[in-house]
Amino acid sequence: MPTSSELFTVRTPQQAQELLMQHFQPVVRAESVSIGEALGRVLAANVAAPEDLPTFRRSTVDGYAVSAADTYGASPGLPALLTVVGEATMGQMADMGMGMGEAVLVHTGSALPDDADAVVMVEHTQSAGQQEIEVMRPIAAGENVFQVGEDVRRGEVILRAGQPIRPQDVGGLAALGIVNVLVAQRPRVGIISTGDEIVPPDHTPHIGQIRDVNSVALGAMVQQVGGLPVFYGIVPDVRARLVETAARAKAECDIVVLSAGSSVSYRDMSVEVIHGLGQPGVLVHGVSVKPGKPTIIALADGVPVFGLPGNPVSAMTIFNLFVTPIIRALLGASERGAHRVQARLTRNIASVTGREDHVQVTLEQRDGVYWATPVAGKPNQIFTMVRATGVVCVPLNANGITAGESVTVRLDA
Amino acid sequence: MPTSSELFTVRTPQQAQELLMQHFQPVVRAESVSIGEALGRVLAANVAAPEDLPTFRRSTVDGYAVSAADTYGASPGLPALLTVVGEATMGQMADMGMGMGEAVLVHTGSALPDDADAVVMVEHTQSAGQQEIEVMRPIAAGENVFQVGEDVRRGEVILRAGQPIRPQDVGGLAALGIVNVLVAQRPRVGIISTGDEIVPPDHTPHIGQIRDVNSVALGAMVQQVGGLPVFYGIVPDVRARLVETAARAKAECDIVVLSAGSSVSYRDMSVEVIHGLGQPGVLVHGVSVKPGKPTIIALADGVPVFGLPGNPVSAMTIFNLFVTPIIRALLGASERGAHRVQARLTRNIASVTGREDHVQVTLEQRDGVYWATPVAGKPNQIFTMVRATGVVCVPLNANGITAGESVTVRLDA
Repeated sequence: MPTSSELFTVRTPQQAQELLMQHFQPVVRAESVSIGEALGRVLAANVAAPEDLPTFRRSTVDGYAVSAADTYGASPGLPALLTVVGEATMGQMADMGMGMGEAVLVHTGSALPDDADAVVMVEHTQSAGQQEIEVMRPIAAGENVFQVGEDVRRGEVILRAGQPIRPQDVGGLAALGIVNVLVAQRPRVGIISTGDEIVPPDHTPHIGQIRDVNSVALGAMVQQVGGLPVFYGIVPDVRARLVETAARAKAECDIVVLSAGSSVSYRDMSVEVIHGLGQPGVLVHGVSVKPGKPTIIALADGVPVFGLPGNPVSAMTIFNLFVTPIIRALLGASERGAHRVQARLTRNIASVTGREDHVQVTLEQRDGVYWATPVAGKPNQIFTMVRATGVVCVPLNANGITAGESVTVRLDA
Repeated sequence: MPTSSELFTVRTPQQAQELLMQHFQPVVRAESVSIGEALGRVLAANVAAPEDLPTFRRSTVDGYAVSAADTYGASPGLPALLTVVGEATMGQMADMGMGMGEAVLVHTGSALPDDADAVVMVEHTQSAGQQEIEVMRPIAAGENVFQVGEDVRRGEVILRAGQPIRPQDVGGLAALGIVNVLVAQRPRVGIISTGDEIVPPDHTPHIGQIRDVNSVALGAMVQQVGGLPVFYGIVPDVRARLVETAARAKAECDIVVLSAGSSVSYRDMSVEVIHGLGQPGVLVHGVSVKPGKPTIIALADGVPVFGLPGNPVSAMTIFNLFVTPIIRALLGASERGAHRVQARLTRNIASVTGREDHVQVTLEQRDGVYWATPVAGKPNQIFTMVRATGVVCVPLNANGITAGESVTVRLDA
């Protein structure tokens, strides 16, 4: 096994991502869910329409189903006289016979009788006795009729694998009688916090101890992206315990995320433990990102394993950068929509060439323009993120960004 | 009871909203949830920090805790010689005595000994025998030290009522030992579909019947906004049945949503039934919106009741416009973030003055600019919405919008 220092070669974020994707083949596992539980889930297969929609010709107005030819030349001065032979009751077949010179009363949504080819709006007719109406204007065949298959044709792909299901998609599936859909299983993400100084959030730490922020915060991020967090608790700085817990998480989950203690000795231990979990082992140790440089990325027998820094802001930043895309890959999720806005910076952001800086900002809108302000204070404490509404990324090769420049802000959910 | 035609006076969307809010006093009901279940829930009360964070002085680097005064004037040529009297083990109190001329080995995150006021990075020291180090540069008091309360001060409001809880907020709560929070109860929204022609989605409709799209689609919208859908099924066009079901929903829910059949007789019946549910009854019947004009808005003994058009696109459009704000009011939710983008229209949108048009569009990005294209086809069928990625609103007093103009697109989730 190489020593931890041999493994430490700082990569750019892009190199790190590419190294992992060279070795990792994500497999989307599907499961069937009812449309009532499908909101937000990611489709695992294309869905094609099993039938035409509408399945029968429907009136789009309240009025009379007619044969258009019967109305040719009709005018207020010389209306067409038609005999009303029935009413198409909602929800019933419109199977009454309707011949030349005849009409059937229809409602919005009614089925059209077979021999009708148009609907004249009730406003364009007037009663002419018990069973007769006068039509005051000519109408064209097809007018006020919603044709079979006009919304969707049978066989048409209506939803595509990789898209998250929205309310209208649920509605579209219901309209076609599809009550179960294949969606991607939620990837199981094992979460391990390590460090002798870490105590559970409901404990009162004595001096020198801090509460476990990462388990719940990373768990919430997993949920938000569509995964299922599996919590393995806090493991003290004892190699055998860490090996045992990490191996169990690797066996039970699709992804394992450790947030390691921040001291050098902890980091050395976690990189060695992660490397020993399976083949090919550690792929990346060190990424040119601030915050989050000491990141570890490994693949253990097909399971991506991430060693995140213990600091919560670093851990969450790195999670967003590397773990989120892997969860989305296991969901087969297509490109995400635009939860980004353009903004102008109110203040300079300093950075260093050769390092990607992820800077927490607040946003405000003035005169129709968004302005982004970096959150004051030491950058890598949890409340920096709590006070922020989004993140600006200073590119690898920039020395910083000057006030007034336009930046892309990735918004929090 | 007034007849339905007496109640039908078309209002602008803003008038309709104002009429409802004049009569409706939303009350936020709180419940306590664990932070592990708090993601996305809306805070029902401000949260103040119960303690300082950090609670003890911590080192931000690996190095030696020192008294800054001991390093004044130090340089590579004339280093300060200090005796290392111990190591601050992670998670332990740093209670070893440390006097003048002494140093304590610390790790990132370690507690500082009482008598230390700065940390010199290990890179700026060198070993000078078993227990001695040389410090090569002077450091200032406070350097590399994270002070008590520097992240959050005890008593500071860290999260505000009305905001939805994000992963970093969960983390911030955990850091302060807050493991349960007060959030708004999810408003219960009763959903009733009506109409003789409506059959459940898993039925095969015969000619003249259509499947119930609105129950599942509106249910998904309720979920998405943070409410709890309660389904009352499909009620046939029988007044007694509708009265009974609507009264039950009103008794059991915070909001009731009916989607009525689209024919005139159904609409007449539903407005009368809704008006009879409680005081003051129907407030709005008819809104200058397309799609969705025959909308009914009522208040029945404190419960908002909405009669939505039966057409799914109309129903979902009106839900967004009127029901979503009421759910958010019952959640006490503050203004929503920016899920809107500016785009330019690729095609003209025709409209009519005095009517707000909600037009489904697709979005594409070209040369860094978003372009919005109205979805082709008859506008008010469910697959128009399935094919869309957002909505453009043509204002009440516009005659339409011309291709090339800039519009705001409200994005789907």
